Amino acid sequence: MARIAVLGTGLIGMFYTMALHAKRGRDRVSVVYGRDPERTRAFAEKWGIETWSTDLAGAIRDPRADVVVVGLPNDLHREAVLLAAAAGKAVLCTKPLARSAAEAREMLEAVEKAGVFHGYLEDLVYTPKTLKAVAAVRRGAIGKVLWTRSREAHPGPHSDWFWNEERSGGGALVDMGCHCIEIGRAFVGKDLRPLEVMCWGATQVHPIEAEDHAIGLVAYEGGAVAQFEAAWTFRGGMDLRDEVSGTEGSIWLNHWLRTGFEMFTSAGAGGYVAEKAEAEAGWLFPVGDEAAALGYEEMFRDMLDALEAGRPPTETFYDGYVVNAIMDAAYRSIDSRAWEPVRIDDWRGAAAAGAAAGATVLDDRYLLIKRERMPDGRVKLILKDRKTGEVVQRLE
Amino acid sequence: MARIAVLGTGLIGMFYTMALHAKRGRDRVSVVYGRDPERTRAFAEKWGIETWSTDLAGAIRDPRADVVVVGLPNDLHREAVLLAAAAGKAVLCTKPLARSAAEAREMLEAVEKAGVFHGYLEDLVYTPKTLKAVAAVRRGAIGKVLWTRSREAHPGPHSDWFWNEERSGGGALVDMGCHCIEIGRAFVGKDLRPLEVMCWGATQVHPIEAEDHAIGLVAYEGGAVAQFEAAWTFRGGMDLRDEVSGTEGSIWLNHWLRTGFEMFTSAGAGGYVAEKAEAEAGWLFPVGDEAAALGYEEMFRDMLDALEAGRPPTETFYDGYVVNAIMDAAYRSIDSRAWEPVRIDDWRGAAAAGAAAGATVLDDRYLLIKRERMPDGRVKLILKDRKTGEVVQRLE
Amino acid sequence: MARIAVLGTGLIGMFYTMALHAKRGRDRVSVVYGRDPERTRAFAEKWGIETWSTDLAGAIRDPRADVVVVGLPNDLHREAVLLAAAAGKAVLCTKPLARSAAEAREMLEAVEKAGVFHGYLEDLVYTPKTLKAVAAVRRGAIGKVLWTRSREAHPGPHSDWFWNEERSGGGALVDMGCHCIEIGRAFVGKDLRPLEVMCWGATQVHPIEAEDHAIGLVAYEGGAVAQFEAAWTFRGGMDLRDEVSGTEGSIWLNHWLRTGFEMFTSAGAGGYVAEKAEAEAGWLFPVGDEAAALGYEEMFRDMLDALEAGRPPTETFYDGYVVNAIMDAAYRSIDSRAWEPVRIDDWRGAAAAGAAAGATVLDDRYLLIKRERMPDGRVKLILKDRKTGEVVQRLE
Amino acid sequence: MARIAVLGTGLIGMFYTMALHAKRGRDRVSVVYGRDPERTRAFAEKWGIETWSTDLAGAIRDPRADVVVVGLPNDLHREAVLLAAAAGKAVLCTKPLARSAAEAREMLEAVEKAGVFHGYLEDLVYTPKTLKAVAAVRRGAIGKVLWTRSREAHPGPHSDWFWNEERSGGGALVDMGCHCIEIGRAFVGKDLRPLEVMCWGATQVHPIEAEDHAIGLVAYEGGAVAQFEAAWTFRGGMDLRDEVSGTEGSIWLNHWLRTGFEMFTSAGAGGYVAEKAEAEAGWLFPVGDEAAALGYEEMFRDMLDALEAGRPPTETFYDGYVVNAIMDAAYRSIDSRAWEPVRIDDWRGAAAAGAAAGATVLDDRYLLIKRERMPDGRVKLILKDRKTGEVVQRLE
Repeated sequence: MARIAVLGTGLIGMFYTMALHAKRGRDRVSVVYGRDPERTRAFAEKWGIETWSTDLAGAIRDPRADVVVVGLPNDLHREAVLLAAAAGKAVLCTKPLARSAAEAREMLEAVEKAGVFHGYLEDLVYTPKTLKAVAAVRRGAIGKVLWTRSREAHPGPHSDWFWNEERSGGGALVDMGCHCIEIGRAFVGKDLRPLEVMCWGATQVHPIEAEDHAIGLVAYEGGAVAQFEAAWTFRGGMDLRDEVSGTEGSIWLNHWLRTGFEMFTSAGAGGYVAEKAEAEAGWLFPVGDEAAALGYEEMFRDMLDALEAGRPPTETFYDGYVVNAIMDAAYRSIDSRAWEPVRIDDWRGAAAAGAAAGATVLDDRYLLIKRERMPDGRVKLILKDRKTGEVVQRLE
Repeated sequence: MARIAVLGTGLIGMFYTMALHAKRGRDRVSVVYGRDPERTRAFAEKWGIETWSTDLAGAIRDPRADVVVVGLPNDLHREAVLLAAAAGKAVLCTKPLARSAAEAREMLEAVEKAGVFHGYLEDLVYTPKTLKAVAAVRRGAIGKVLWTRSREAHPGPHSDWFWNEERSGGGALVDMGCHCIEIGRAFVGKDLRPLEVMCWGATQVHPIEAEDHAIGLVAYEGGAVAQFEAAWTFRGGMDLRDEVSGTEGSIWLNHWLRTGFEMFTSAGAGGYVAEKAEAEAGWLFPVGDEAAALGYEEMFRDMLDALEAGRPPTETFYDGYVVNAIMDAAYRSIDSRAWEPVRIDDWRGAAAAGAAAGATVLDDRYLLIKRERMPDGRVKLILKDRKTGEVVQRLE
Repeated sequence: MARIAVLGTGLIGMFYTMALHAKRGRDRVSVVYGRDPERTRAFAEKWGIETWSTDLAGAIRDPRADVVVVGLPNDLHREAVLLAAAAGKAVLCTKPLARSAAEAREMLEAVEKAGVFHGYLEDLVYTPKTLKAVAAVRRGAIGKVLWTRSREAHPGPHSDWFWNEERSGGGALVDMGCHCIEIGRAFVGKDLRPLEVMCWGATQVHPIEAEDHAIGLVAYEGGAVAQFEAAWTFRGGMDLRDEVSGTEGSIWLNHWLRTGFEMFTSAGAGGYVAEKAEAEAGWLFPVGDEAAALGYEEMFRDMLDALEAGRPPTETFYDGYVVNAIMDAAYRSIDSRAWEPVRIDDWRGAAAAGAAAGATVLDDRYLLIKRERMPDGRVKLILKDRKTGEVVQRLE
Repeated sequence: MARIAVLGTGLIGMFYTMALHAKRGRDRVSVVYGRDPERTRAFAEKWGIETWSTDLAGAIRDPRADVVVVGLPNDLHREAVLLAAAAGKAVLCTKPLARSAAEAREMLEAVEKAGVFHGYLEDLVYTPKTLKAVAAVRRGAIGKVLWTRSREAHPGPHSDWFWNEERSGGGALVDMGCHCIEIGRAFVGKDLRPLEVMCWGATQVHPIEAEDHAIGLVAYEGGAVAQFEAAWTFRGGMDLRDEVSGTEGSIWLNHWLRTGFEMFTSAGAGGYVAEKAEAEAGWLFPVGDEAAALGYEEMFRDMLDALEAGRPPTETFYDGYVVNAIMDAAYRSIDSRAWEPVRIDDWRGAAAAGAAAGATVLDDRYLLIKRERMPDGRVKLILKDRKTGEVVQRLE
């Protein structure tokens, strides 16, 4: 059983608490910290939390909790993590880990120096679909990964601080691109080094300073590219999809709008439909169990199981740091309008990528470019002469 | 924390144990019963269960467990439940409750007489999608329910006893129709009395005595009909879908084959894809979290929360009895080739149905039959003269 | 090139004319008949039709047309067809052919006696998807057909006469069930005799005399059942789906609401969305080419190609008669509340059905009931002892 | 009626001929040119074509045809078009128009100088879904277009010459990116100038010189970006999808793999499934009418209707030239690894883009950043102080 201090009483604090207390779980939130006393007290009451506090350091040090969960705005992650490390507490921090790789690195060093358990709360890597898909990829079901696309798009976040560039560290890219980037990394393989980033970003709709739309590519050692699409400009709900393309197969995941739950109502749904749903009548697409579909359940299971087992979780502060490093390169690329290298001082993955997929040798003379059944039923081979390079076709 | 004795080490025993032990839950299976000592011992070891036994009565009475979960073949439910009632233990029984309404009634009376907590493990009513959809229906999102369709179809069950009519009590109807019937009831409203059943059943494919395909309609007080489709003849995996049609809206649920997880592999999935998946290459449709998608998690949550709170769970033995009564009528209908009344001696629902949806009165002269936008953009009204009954149309 | 007289200026007359004139076709509507002079003249002008008339017999005999297309309300089919037969003209009649098998038979005899070409305008059998699916079934792609489900459901038809039982011959069953029934026949195989029908029908929503919802099963020689679902009570647009289940495979067709065109609009679609769409904002599901998706194009291609080639089309008046015979049995079944035989005086299909799918013989001792991969990866066989009938299981 | 000379007897020549002869059309292919006499003669016979020839110039000048359709490999477009212009014939050329903007410009100038009708056979802009979606966008259904994504991906083309960089002018980008780019232009608005391109390209799988995978962004005047994804590396069939995001809505089109036709077969489909389908058993996704779904029908309708009406078609050589100019910039960007300007010497669109979507003024003090319903049902506003720029939130 884990005793947990949740820092933050916003939407993310609420989702985390719900996930931790859900379904006859043995873990309990025993301390909650919030800035506003009224709101924090109400939160504690609503979720049956023993103690509440408006004193950040006090809440972190409170002996009633062994694990600190940071669910605060981005500009407060560093302080909270440093306090937790100083208090010798296990610390789990929401995404993005920090507002820059430098800040992330400082946090990583603090927890490693203090020797405390640290987890990066990148929930979308933990959705049941993503976990199963990543496992299938690791088993070789789609061959060598060539390309991934991870997309998160909706009309914009819930709280004011997201829209304030200084507090959040950026716009849609830092808010949601962090998810997409880590999902891409999970599929490509965390052992492969992210080399370079090309990113477009713009403020298309909202009257803000930061980008409300960003699209980019991360080039990995070994040749795979991971595409991320983060938009606060999308209309129609929350578009949360991943695609993976490999030499032997493909995967398509839809986490939110098309999950097998479709409802038409002329009466109005009579209440909450789904996170960021934009309509209450007509065709609606609710999600069965939102907390599970967003990965909260499996994320905390992995974190707390790992803590008890004395092993690192699947997502650590190091992963958060790598994501920040990739985002830093993305922001530089938006400015430079060119590919930018990813600067990771402390690369802990593999030293060199695996060999590229070799060409298929058909016989002494030819490499096989492609084999295909035609509309008329014949099977055609496209071949390349190994000496001359000439491309020819032949019916099988 | 609940201490549970699981009876049965087959697929259902395994799924139940997995669900009970899943995700940092506080409940534990402490006793397991199986017929085969080797298999039972292995099961206990694999799932970390304190004790195992090949003595049914002994396992039920074992003081290490407070709750008995019956995951045995259909012909053994009655004995297990009667023993549990005699032992004064809370008892949860898998679906179908019994092989007939008479047998179900005996079991219901036994637990009620003994005053023990009883739950009917109808998991598919507890899928997150179903729970949310039923809640939306109760809130009025689709108006008055007119029709439901619940379908479960796959190539046939896993264990030999299902295919033995004496042991199972029937074929596809008793095995899977029980799910579909209770899902229909959940949408229509459990307070409404099932009046009559019309059912077709046949042995189309497998060399067995019982039906491997059954389709039927249950007519409810108040006018709704609930359609059930149960097939052991379907090819392509497990088709698990529900549809609901109401005066103000519609709901479509897909629980298995189209849930937003799509994978193509030419290499082969390299392992298990999904329950009853029929292929390991080509386009595959895995399910993210199978135990959650099948409702096991929410089912045990409701059961054990109810037990602790001293309230009945959403699905009790009474519900199981009603389902058996409807299935009895269905089997009679297969034979008589006509509608058959549902015989429930002990109706506990509402005494009379709510009034039918009234016609919309347009004005002194007309009732509104329909209002529609035409392809050319005009809006047309179809009207019925309240006196003469004449039907006319008019452009708005 | 065909010169065509279209009878009827309602929605169906318009759709037929659009389909006939579409896409650089060589066929022309040269005569149009309507009851209302103003409307008929406007129709002729809009669609570039040479002549218009309010005289039914005159329009049919007009030498400017060689082919008569009947797009009139159901109660006028008989008269129009008899006049066309008397005039020695090829005649194509919209669905349902008639209001009863007796009326259909009279029409069939008239055209056969007159020796004129006759086609039954059952468009939904001619959608590109349906044609391709039926062809795949005929090639054996899904083995022996066991079950079909054809569903057409929407909030009700466009014109007043549909809602008048005398004129239309019934309600949703005669209006849309005719489609579903013939689609079922096309998949099962037209050579197989429809033996019996079980049908439920009710007036659930609209203030009319006829049924606005009907669900039934048609049992065919050889063991297949074809399920039809016709509803004027559905909310959410037009639900047009077919499913086919065979011993070796399955087919799912969605013709209208989920065809790969999904649109969210908060602004409103700014015009027509799709036939029977119920909303103009939120998530909408338009159809690319409605006339093609509804089968009009391929239907007229087959009809006019057949006429020119001197062969019967895929759908003749005989097919329309069989459908009416099945619907008659369905209406009798609604009343008798039991299975009713299909009365076809003049069966022209095969004399006897093909043999049922035989059981798979595993070895001298066992029949194979089922083979399946389990979640743990093992492959399990369910076997039946050929002598004792005992069912056992064995791991492969 | 149009009399047409088709140049080329490969897959594209066949598809064009099928589309032109389809469905009782009044147009006929009267001349066919091919390099190989045997193959060309067989083609003419199969499709009922009056004349065939292996002499390119002779076929183009043949008086039996008024319209020349160029369905040749990319390196032969220029010669054929120049001959057609010289012959004073209307000329329709397949995609891509040329291998570079310079070559395209020469062709454009030739047809304009000769004063002949010219059409760019960009079929995918003409699918019924795309036409309807573009029309909805023009009507304002999704507001101002912000982003489009057009994706074409499959395992590689059918004929050898595609794989030869000199003949085709590139790889996947020139082969399929041309589709995606013009689809993006159609949604964004052809009046808006494409300004810059950023593109990634690589040879990931096939042993060829050109890129087999390319992803890029086109930035348009007015702020929209159009994303294109072209892959010869995709596994699972042909992935043909478009997405459009606007200030008021979204559109998702799926043209090939998920169109409402789903089939499972353990027996094998028994023949052709769909263009570039990769499997013949398991779950398959055929397309109802491939020629229609690929836009061939509507494309030739527009072309020949325009020719007869004396108006330019929707897609002219100028459009082909713009696409080539964008692709040139994309190839430069692959090399320079930075955004590259699109060089269009002869811009014929609007001189300046429309104004950007303005911010919503809530009141004297605030701009509205966002309005949203929260999970707890409350409605929250995110506001920006018009003077201080401070971001605050407020419950409605």
